[in-house]
Amino acid sequence: MDLKETQLSSEPIFQGTFINIARDTIRLPNGNESTRVVIRHPGAACVLAVTDNDEVVLVRQWRYACDQALLELPAGKLDAGEDPAVCALRELAEETPYTADSVKLLHTFYTAPGFCDELMYLYQAEGVREGSTLQNDEDEFTETVLMSREEVKAALKNNQVSDGKTLAGLQYWLLNS
Amino acid sequence: MDLKETQLSSEPIFQGTFINIARDTIRLPNGNESTRVVIRHPGAACVLAVTDNDEVVLVRQWRYACDQALLELPAGKLDAGEDPAVCALRELAEETPYTADSVKLLHTFYTAPGFCDELMYLYQAEGVREGSTLQNDEDEFTETVLMSREEVKAALKNNQVSDGKTLAGLQYWLLNS
Repeated sequence: MDLKETQLSSEPIFQGTFINIARDTIRLPNGNESTRVVIRHPGAACVLAVTDNDEVVLVRQWRYACDQALLELPAGKLDAGEDPAVCALRELAEETPYTADSVKLLHTFYTAPGFCDELMYLYQAEGVREGSTLQNDEDEFTETVLMSREEVKAALKNNQVSDGKTLAGLQYWLLNS
Repeated sequence: MDLKETQLSSEPIFQGTFINIARDTIRLPNGNESTRVVIRHPGAACVLAVTDNDEVVLVRQWRYACDQALLELPAGKLDAGEDPAVCALRELAEETPYTADSVKLLHTFYTAPGFCDELMYLYQAEGVREGSTLQNDEDEFTETVLMSREEVKAALKNNQVSDGKTLAGLQYWLLNS
């Protein structure tokens, strides 16, 4: 079956510092016209970092859109032209007292493909070490949380992981180690 | 640490059929002001449905924002006031030739908490049966794809699952059965 939707025109709605929003008119596979609101995002990277003590490094931070603090993998938006692997290493060092030598790509996935092109790169950190001081920006506030494998299993079972990329990363950890 | 960000004012940017976008001015924990672009979404539900043959029911559909067809769990936005469990059962019946008797909540998670309040309800279907005809809307186009556990393992290993909720749902399946 031909599933493709083709752009006929695009009307800009909003241009922000990191997201752009447009309303596009499209041609459906059956020939009908329709519209799609599309949010364009630069993409992001997140990192599963496990310490020598077999604890995963998470950050707790306020998520204004969700009106609550969430427990998440260290993550951030890609800077213009930035290698997602470099972004993942940078965010780990900025948001937590841990650094890593390198990262290995585990999965790439769209976070909200129904209306947004944000592509998330999920990495596993290699050579995780403690020791750096936090390099948070002045207006960035995070707490570091370490969790053991048993604590992660309990948190998943009790539906206490409320961020999609973090759910995927923690499940990966339990499945593959 | 106090992480909370407080709304000072909100400027509407866009009101669509299912998403609203605003730019809010906020107070940071350190007293500074900042802005947040926030996308308000009604929430969504998706469903892990496994057949008597131990195959998971997926749908392939075009995702305009991502300019490609993605393989996903059956899913959809919540109608106004709709119980997410009812939404999950409805989407399974609309998008695939399968129905289910009931669903059990596995996880709820924000798909893109950095800028959007979309909350995703991930369910497991109980009493999955084939037999219904597709109830797709006229302008909705999906293909049903069945995958065995071994095919899912291979797809995950080869980074062929490019949707976040689907990654979480399939990893749940492998971890819990």
